[in-house]
Amino acid sequence: MSVTATDGFDDPAYRDGIVDLLGLLGLGELTGFERMAADAGLAPTLADKAALAGMAVTEFHHFEHIRDRLGELGASVDEAMAPFRDALEQFHANTAPADWLEGLVKAYVGDGIAADFYREVAEEVDPLTRQLVLEVLADAGHADFAVERVREAIAADSRVAGRLALWARRLVGEALAQAQRVAVDRDALAVLVVGGAGRAGLDLAEIGQLFARITRKHADRMTKLGLSP
Amino acid sequence: MSVTATDGFDDPAYRDGIVDLLGLLGLGELTGFERMAADAGLAPTLADKAALAGMAVTEFHHFEHIRDRLGELGASVDEAMAPFRDALEQFHANTAPADWLEGLVKAYVGDGIAADFYREVAEEVDPLTRQLVLEVLADAGHADFAVERVREAIAADSRVAGRLALWARRLVGEALAQAQRVAVDRDALAVLVVGGAGRAGLDLAEIGQLFARITRKHADRMTKLGLSP
Repeated sequence: MSVTATDGFDDPAYRDGIVDLLGLLGLGELTGFERMAADAGLAPTLADKAALAGMAVTEFHHFEHIRDRLGELGASVDEAMAPFRDALEQFHANTAPADWLEGLVKAYVGDGIAADFYREVAEEVDPLTRQLVLEVLADAGHADFAVERVREAIAADSRVAGRLALWARRLVGEALAQAQRVAVDRDALAVLVVGGAGRAGLDLAEIGQLFARITRKHADRMTKLGLSP
Repeated sequence: MSVTATDGFDDPAYRDGIVDLLGLLGLGELTGFERMAADAGLAPTLADKAALAGMAVTEFHHFEHIRDRLGELGASVDEAMAPFRDALEQFHANTAPADWLEGLVKAYVGDGIAADFYREVAEEVDPLTRQLVLEVLADAGHADFAVERVREAIAADSRVAGRLALWARRLVGEALAQAQRVAVDRDALAVLVVGGAGRAGLDLAEIGQLFARITRKHADRMTKLGLSP
């Protein structure tokens, strides 16, 4: 795949924004790999362990696609990911799951919100980038797996639902705090969404609608888990 | 690949031994995946993190090969792995690395000894099983990676060498304790090595030579790391 000027890459600010986007997404996949692999260690059965390990491996292969694409853009994946390391590490340090169920809820709720955000941003970028973003967001079966296990646990002990609902709320709060930090720090990425010199973007009303869509989809996921949003 | 009687599978004890062997090896690869993924979380740089994550993924693909082969033998991978879960979990619980370097030494030294043992056992089994065992033991580059990082750390601070040499000795002690437990518990596996009703195996002198070879290769690895055996 070659980069053509018509994709918008003749604008250095646009290219920087895409490198930022892929850096953030790549680090998300790499830490997603780590987190799912760690959750596999909490699995109650060897079958669950192997299933979760397999999903972690899919995340790593997504990371490899992003690394390859950054290479095509002449960017180093390590450098592209570096600006987001603190925010992601802080998020994970503040939301370390205490058990198997918290890990499943975290992956489902957290990855769900992140994926909704990336899909929104994908609407604003060139077709090749969009295709890559949508491809690496494809769910490896983790969502159904998490929903099934969490619902089973609630059926066995209804008190689990209250604890996990609180946990999900804490996750969303932490995710927003770190997302705001990234938005403030990384102009190039923010410009992809809100526009900037010579580039159209979302206006304030559209940003409001974007948040409303992401919030609604989050509530749908909570309902699927059997938790009050 | 089909199973033919000429491979020795007409003997139920032989088949049980192979299922045990593949179960142990499969669980070793799956926990190796988990452990390397966890070590990736301790990596000092994103490049090291991605490198180690990639090696973890290779271990998982090895696990998949073993699972497929067990399926061909009509055995469930979960059931085949289950008898070894306690021993492997106990080993890892007793040898949780305190830092990045201890994790590298553990993987290099521990996997090295395990691989030497499996290679010895592979000499005693049918060609198809032997080929699979040798294939999944192929190093994914982890050995060179570990040697390089450990030697750099010793060059930067020679006191590291003493601490890591003690650590390696503890690893070997724990590994032997768990291996003995497995040998006592799993007759079918032991029979593959030492023989049994209707099957030749190693005699006592040959077992002594086997241990001597494994010990010598362990000493070679320690020297490569820059540690006294």
